[in-house]
Amino acid sequence: MANAADQAASEYSTKGAYVSGGQEYTRDTNYIETRITRDGRDGYPVEAGRYRLIAARACPWANRTIIVRRLLGLEEAISLGMPGPTHDSRSWTFDLDPDGKDPVLGIERLQEAFFRRTPGYSRGITVPAVVDIPSGAVVTNNFPQITEDFSSEWVDFHRDGAPDLWPAEHLEEMREVNKRVFTEVNNGVYRCGFAGSQEAYDAAYDRLWTAMDWLEDRLATQRYLIGDTITEADVRLFTTLVRFDAVYHGHFKCNRNKLSEMPNLWGYARDLFQTPGFGDTVDFVQIKQHYYIVHEDINPTGIVPKGPDNSVWLTEHGREALGGRPFGNGTAPGPVRPGEEVAPGHGAE
Amino acid sequence: MANAADQAASEYSTKGAYVSGGQEYTRDTNYIETRITRDGRDGYPVEAGRYRLIAARACPWANRTIIVRRLLGLEEAISLGMPGPTHDSRSWTFDLDPDGKDPVLGIERLQEAFFRRTPGYSRGITVPAVVDIPSGAVVTNNFPQITEDFSSEWVDFHRDGAPDLWPAEHLEEMREVNKRVFTEVNNGVYRCGFAGSQEAYDAAYDRLWTAMDWLEDRLATQRYLIGDTITEADVRLFTTLVRFDAVYHGHFKCNRNKLSEMPNLWGYARDLFQTPGFGDTVDFVQIKQHYYIVHEDINPTGIVPKGPDNSVWLTEHGREALGGRPFGNGTAPGPVRPGEEVAPGHGAE
Repeated sequence: MANAADQAASEYSTKGAYVSGGQEYTRDTNYIETRITRDGRDGYPVEAGRYRLIAARACPWANRTIIVRRLLGLEEAISLGMPGPTHDSRSWTFDLDPDGKDPVLGIERLQEAFFRRTPGYSRGITVPAVVDIPSGAVVTNNFPQITEDFSSEWVDFHRDGAPDLWPAEHLEEMREVNKRVFTEVNNGVYRCGFAGSQEAYDAAYDRLWTAMDWLEDRLATQRYLIGDTITEADVRLFTTLVRFDAVYHGHFKCNRNKLSEMPNLWGYARDLFQTPGFGDTVDFVQIKQHYYIVHEDINPTGIVPKGPDNSVWLTEHGREALGGRPFGNGTAPGPVRPGEEVAPGHGAE
Repeated sequence: MANAADQAASEYSTKGAYVSGGQEYTRDTNYIETRITRDGRDGYPVEAGRYRLIAARACPWANRTIIVRRLLGLEEAISLGMPGPTHDSRSWTFDLDPDGKDPVLGIERLQEAFFRRTPGYSRGITVPAVVDIPSGAVVTNNFPQITEDFSSEWVDFHRDGAPDLWPAEHLEEMREVNKRVFTEVNNGVYRCGFAGSQEAYDAAYDRLWTAMDWLEDRLATQRYLIGDTITEADVRLFTTLVRFDAVYHGHFKCNRNKLSEMPNLWGYARDLFQTPGFGDTVDFVQIKQHYYIVHEDINPTGIVPKGPDNSVWLTEHGREALGGRPFGNGTAPGPVRPGEEVAPGHGAE
């Protein structure tokens, strides 16, 4: 029995999936780029109840979509399926759901929805993915476009008081900041963690901390990244920052200092965490299980650290002194939709 | 060539040497217990110039002996050989020395001195070890006894002003504190890092932090661990604390918080670091290389983190306010012996 289990485990091991000896880590950024639009030009028109967002709480890219869906009040229009935090080389599964199946799509593995779209689909089976419920096929897993389209294409389904996450007067600056945050920080931590050589790691570390210092400076005098309201630029940075001390600091060796040692970034991150729509989507238990168990290349024991203490996320941040209007002319979202709450003991409480 | 090198590397890989699946980490504490004494009852009398202390800077147990030798001024009486920070399953080598040989013993591997003592010696080839220079054989690697004997048996060779590291009036308390520090902290960090199961790790983590909290409390009102002067109890705790944020926090998953987040312990550790004889023996580069490169079981990539920033060790600690007489009726040791300085860029500067 033990041998059979070992064989089954090693057949789908993730060993070698993340770190390539001697090489810099390069993310495969080829996604299914089909869009869901008001005019339905790609064959997928905006339509309440037709699509299901598949987003694991553990994943920072998926976490973005959960936050934006909540800030905009799209919960009624777009349902949410949540794979568990860990997986083998066959990628995300619905192991937290009853009978291990997504209750709407009826599938065990997200892979099945990708195969419905393209038999034998050979690129990454990634979250977030938006699935067309009638056909059971993935429409898109192109994460930066998914959230942008939540703002622009799904506007008829936004809640009253939904904030403008892409303010027209700041678009150009947002694109610039988003680009730098993506390459240097969101992906920068992975470049450190999955470096295949000391040289690649050293270079990745320097790139990351150059960007972290830039952000620390930028946030000294302004409450948010762009203008004086929360924008999607903040959402995109937040999902990396909230994982920083729990995972990236140790597991990815991003350890010049903890986030909590950078006063402006730490204040900024806690300010967002304590804003409805941000911290209430964060599951530290799932986050840690995901990284430490899935990445056999860098944590072969699969042991998940007990630290750090997450209650510090609820401490006073003092960022109100910088002014700013979190939701601009809009309002904060209401309580988390029943059934979508972070499990007790998994948050910062 | 590459294949041959790979094969050579894997023949002496440390894989499996540290972590045993499913099990708690247990240190082999069987050492060669021969003692060097004034009366020479084990065949090895105290004698200036006869013995060579082999102590890798990387190793916390060896670091103790380097500190005590320096505090007591035994540099002239007992010479010092220093293996490099990394090794394979055949253990410590003199790869930093000219031609890769210890200049006094003429050997490449410390193993050779153990084999001179006992052919085929099958227990751990560990530092610190004291070698009898005429025979080239290890006398002892029983590290707690080595430093205690430096104080009690080598007293005729102490420098003027050598401190009393084992004050008679506190012996009982010292033995108690030393025992708890050894099992819960010195060895406690290894119990976390080499745990073979989640359960073993979780239990080890709780044990460690219970002891860290006890120390944090104890050091709130007293400058040193025992009495009001530096004792060997402080030396024994220091060598673990100085490695804490650099190695144990991330590599061993001792990550409830950094040492620098515990005000009393952090002040205490910096106070000692800035005391002659402590920080001037610490090589952060060698420390990090040792742990991250040697322990293939838990860091298979062998990549060494660039962080954390070590200059924080030189910041003001304010512990003088608690009083205390660091060296009691003695004095601080003078400058580091020429040739034994920590390499530039490897300390906290």
